Amino acid sequence: MSPKITTELLKQLRQVMKNPRYVQEPVQAYIVPSGDAHQSEYIAPCDCRRAFISGFDGSAGTAIVTEQHAAMWTDGRYFLQAAHQMDSNWTLMKMGLKDTPTQEDWLVSVLPEGSKVGVDPFIIPADQWKRMSKALRSAGHDLVPVKENLINTIWTDCPQRPCKPLITLDLSYTGVSWRDKIIALRSKMAERKVMWFVVTALDEVAWLFNLRGSDVEYNPVFFAYAVIGMNTIRLFIDGDRMTDPAVREHLQLDSTLEPEFKIQVMPYGSILSELQAVGAGLSPKEKVWLSDKASYALTEAIPKAYRYLTPYTPICIAKAVKNAAETEGMRRAHIKDAVALCELFNWLEKEVPKGTITEIVAADKAEEFRSQQKDFVELSFATISSTGPNGAIIHYKPVPETNRTLSVNEIYLLDSGAQYKDGTTDVTRTMHFGTPSAYEKECFTYVLKGHIAVSAAIFPNGTKGHLLDSFARSALWDCGLDYLHGTGHGVGSFLNVHEGPCGISYKTFADEPLEAGMIVSDEPGYYEDGSFGIRIENVVLVIPAETKYNFKNRGSLTFEPLTLVPIQTKMIDVNLLTEKECNWVNEYHQKCREVVGAELERQGRHEALRWLLRETEPLARVQ
Amino acid sequence: MSPKITTELLKQLRQVMKNPRYVQEPVQAYIVPSGDAHQSEYIAPCDCRRAFISGFDGSAGTAIVTEQHAAMWTDGRYFLQAAHQMDSNWTLMKMGLKDTPTQEDWLVSVLPEGSKVGVDPFIIPADQWKRMSKALRSAGHDLVPVKENLINTIWTDCPQRPCKPLITLDLSYTGVSWRDKIIALRSKMAERKVMWFVVTALDEVAWLFNLRGSDVEYNPVFFAYAVIGMNTIRLFIDGDRMTDPAVREHLQLDSTLEPEFKIQVMPYGSILSELQAVGAGLSPKEKVWLSDKASYALTEAIPKAYRYLTPYTPICIAKAVKNAAETEGMRRAHIKDAVALCELFNWLEKEVPKGTITEIVAADKAEEFRSQQKDFVELSFATISSTGPNGAIIHYKPVPETNRTLSVNEIYLLDSGAQYKDGTTDVTRTMHFGTPSAYEKECFTYVLKGHIAVSAAIFPNGTKGHLLDSFARSALWDCGLDYLHGTGHGVGSFLNVHEGPCGISYKTFADEPLEAGMIVSDEPGYYEDGSFGIRIENVVLVIPAETKYNFKNRGSLTFEPLTLVPIQTKMIDVNLLTEKECNWVNEYHQKCREVVGAELERQGRHEALRWLLRETEPLARVQ
Repeated sequence: MSPKITTELLKQLRQVMKNPRYVQEPVQAYIVPSGDAHQSEYIAPCDCRRAFISGFDGSAGTAIVTEQHAAMWTDGRYFLQAAHQMDSNWTLMKMGLKDTPTQEDWLVSVLPEGSKVGVDPFIIPADQWKRMSKALRSAGHDLVPVKENLINTIWTDCPQRPCKPLITLDLSYTGVSWRDKIIALRSKMAERKVMWFVVTALDEVAWLFNLRGSDVEYNPVFFAYAVIGMNTIRLFIDGDRMTDPAVREHLQLDSTLEPEFKIQVMPYGSILSELQAVGAGLSPKEKVWLSDKASYALTEAIPKAYRYLTPYTPICIAKAVKNAAETEGMRRAHIKDAVALCELFNWLEKEVPKGTITEIVAADKAEEFRSQQKDFVELSFATISSTGPNGAIIHYKPVPETNRTLSVNEIYLLDSGAQYKDGTTDVTRTMHFGTPSAYEKECFTYVLKGHIAVSAAIFPNGTKGHLLDSFARSALWDCGLDYLHGTGHGVGSFLNVHEGPCGISYKTFADEPLEAGMIVSDEPGYYEDGSFGIRIENVVLVIPAETKYNFKNRGSLTFEPLTLVPIQTKMIDVNLLTEKECNWVNEYHQKCREVVGAELERQGRHEALRWLLRETEPLARVQ
Repeated sequence: MSPKITTELLKQLRQVMKNPRYVQEPVQAYIVPSGDAHQSEYIAPCDCRRAFISGFDGSAGTAIVTEQHAAMWTDGRYFLQAAHQMDSNWTLMKMGLKDTPTQEDWLVSVLPEGSKVGVDPFIIPADQWKRMSKALRSAGHDLVPVKENLINTIWTDCPQRPCKPLITLDLSYTGVSWRDKIIALRSKMAERKVMWFVVTALDEVAWLFNLRGSDVEYNPVFFAYAVIGMNTIRLFIDGDRMTDPAVREHLQLDSTLEPEFKIQVMPYGSILSELQAVGAGLSPKEKVWLSDKASYALTEAIPKAYRYLTPYTPICIAKAVKNAAETEGMRRAHIKDAVALCELFNWLEKEVPKGTITEIVAADKAEEFRSQQKDFVELSFATISSTGPNGAIIHYKPVPETNRTLSVNEIYLLDSGAQYKDGTTDVTRTMHFGTPSAYEKECFTYVLKGHIAVSAAIFPNGTKGHLLDSFARSALWDCGLDYLHGTGHGVGSFLNVHEGPCGISYKTFADEPLEAGMIVSDEPGYYEDGSFGIRIENVVLVIPAETKYNFKNRGSLTFEPLTLVPIQTKMIDVNLLTEKECNWVNEYHQKCREVVGAELERQGRHEALRWLLRETEPLARVQ
């Protein structure tokens, strides 16, 4: 991977930062955040402005360019990748390390007195604007909205915003009609005494209307906003997508409906003016509910006294708790996904020794096997297919320049997943196709112990996910090891593979308590720069737990793995497992045999079935 | 314990809430926080306004009185106690339970439109003022400072503010002179570019000047403020305490000193006007550093643009990391404390079967044994001496009305500690003087497993204490049990038994990372209302840990118990312990034998020594 040469681009950007055509006054710094106008994690090519200016295309990062400097903040998953992709114009700011300054502190340290710091108000979330603006102001600088996106002014071949057809989901997939979701939302609005709710996150729009799209790779969403009133529904969406008869019928656009369920379709670009009109027409006490992560531009459209901002919207919270139809769909999707991976690993076992399988070939083969499964739509994220030292690049994606050949001498890490019409998957397995070293097995086993500690944890109702994070690290910590990423994230139901409001992380973000029906990943790891990477990831469902006692009648929760793919026993140092851990592995493998075995049988995939049976032989612990 | 009858008092308070002599405009609600003007946890009798108005005298709680309601917010430690101490005028608001409203939400729900909510600006911390004021304002109400404390206007027999003699501590106790502490503080001030630092917490004033007092029971502090400039030192303190020759010499008040180390002594009551003068005389860019928990009154004395507020002051952080002299002092104090407790438990074992030992007698005896030890000053908090159902009242203190007789049929919980001139102790042991039931042993053993899980935890440098909290609960959670309090708090060195900025809690407060030299408690528990309480508490020192590997060269930490008092093996169900846990208990008891045994021997306390040897027989685990 050679870095992108950015000298000329930065020169151009610094020119437009002073060009009165674009800025009222020159800005001494310009912030290029990761996201799009919906604060999406995965973004369309037309929104990859930070990658365009810097070369670094990881999923998280913020670039700041001043007259003298160009700096990039990103987290532990991307330290290596960012260092590889950026040229010497850029300084890498490693977030999470003690000596790394915050963006605000850094700006204050490098800017001349009384500077203006520019940012696109549609791209920066309101909460971040507020924090940054305050910090800059107290140091004598100003954060200013720059209406025209300055990257767009120098990005001559910027792609078009996508506008692809929609998919409608019926009740068998969603369990609840969009109409009932609107009713539930309005009842939450009534509870909080708000009259309007603005849906800004793409997955929330998709979930609310039981629609899916493909405007953003990996995430089945479409560019749209919605504004829900107590008696009105406005959907802001472009293109001819609303002429599709299936969509029209799904949304009942041509039916005689009670007026409060009649959807008004409006152009995507009219959201700001429409919202400003809503804001101007509010009577006292009429509040408008927005996420505090909605863009600064939309938030400002509502006068401050009328805003009701929360970190998580009622849609975000409702969406996280999967109903029976969604849970069953997720189960089906994970069984199909396991079938594909059994096929893949069986194939790799035979092919890797021949020395012809590269990371890209393996990733493509994984996609091929997945695409054979019913209701397959696309991958749920870029496959991390990495062997040897590439495995230590936490969010690695193989490209021709880095593409390494799998061998019987190196650890292979595959983190991959798919979108099926009935569910979203995300699974990581770490395999060795030869004989792992004692040290590799030792590290793998610590990671496995961490995985089990979370998966088998029993905890009271109301517990927040971050309280479980240390369970995943304890075995590693005991030996002085650790990993620099969180342990788990929420997973959507045929939606974004990363979703809020729950997760398992040492970072204390405002996560909501875990509830039965929520779905998260459990993915501890261990990475040795330049050598190898290990991660073991299952998607798990929060379920009620039976316990001997029941303190304060609170009830307890635990996890049920939805992912049912064998964990390579060859990599396990059985002597490092407790009896309980050993039983967990054996019971997990027994379930893989029963559930996935039956499906392999049904699909007539006999060789993969034999592989599954071989790989799920019970561990025998030396007493 | 019968509740305090507050009908008449509340009537009087509601009258002064409307009396133009005290309030510019009537206030519809009046907040009575727990603290004093220094945001102390333990307060002098003259500051116990919340206890005066409500009857509830636990260490944490906030009362709010409106024209119709009187409500008390407190946490899980005090649910039972508050319910016992308050009459039916009061509604108990159980903090930490899902359905309990915040103070702000409750006020908004009960107040008539456009209400004024009053509070004493000296008593409310600035951060709390800010949060509350914002929430009230957005609901159309106003938080207003009421200069005269309204409780004081109706508290006719309010005691005088204490003004007791000071104790000077020399280098053998403190390790660092006050002069060097001032130098270190000024260097932190220079780093942050602030010109003034305002010391508002009583333990920070005491620590900075290497002085101790006894104005507040259990906490060796004295009423004072300090304002440190880059070239000036002002100490605000009342009484004739500065005429004491020892104090004058310690502070070098009569020496010829460089002017920047010359201490100006001023009256305690002049802090506000002096600070206002400082605030008025600031040049641009001259910042004043205050804790964000300093009172609203003092914070307001500095114009907003000149304030530099942090959750923890540099003194708070420096004070938490004990130097060699302090650590050695803490070790000595804990050995002496263990001697006293060996004497006590040996004595109780003989006396309890006679049926004459009450909770108060036992507490007094504990104090008697402690007072026999060298450099004993006073207790470090009110002894929790509780048997049977009283043990379930987490911060119980025996009073004649509740005083229960210890017996061979009930669990006895003793949470106690002392101030010695060389250190502060805090230890809880749970004992049975007859034969515990299988269920009692089971619960005790889960608590012990949690205690060991924290004490033996190895974790990376830079880890915050809250990440360790779940380790203490895991064994309880597995069986559906839990406890409704945090797991640990910082402990001062001959200072407050509770101190920041570190701790171990499920509540994600802004704790600072643990560092070698910090001292915290490790005290999981289990409480069954109406039956019994179990808690096992050691004070532990953060020390470097040797690990097999060393990821990113971060280094690891673990804990060394400073408390060396046997854990009753009779209460342990050995079959529930892992081999590692069993070894931990045996090694801990071996250390008690060696270290405390030697001191018992030295003090000629042979009977207590025999008790210690008996109680520290190794556990034998059935394989």
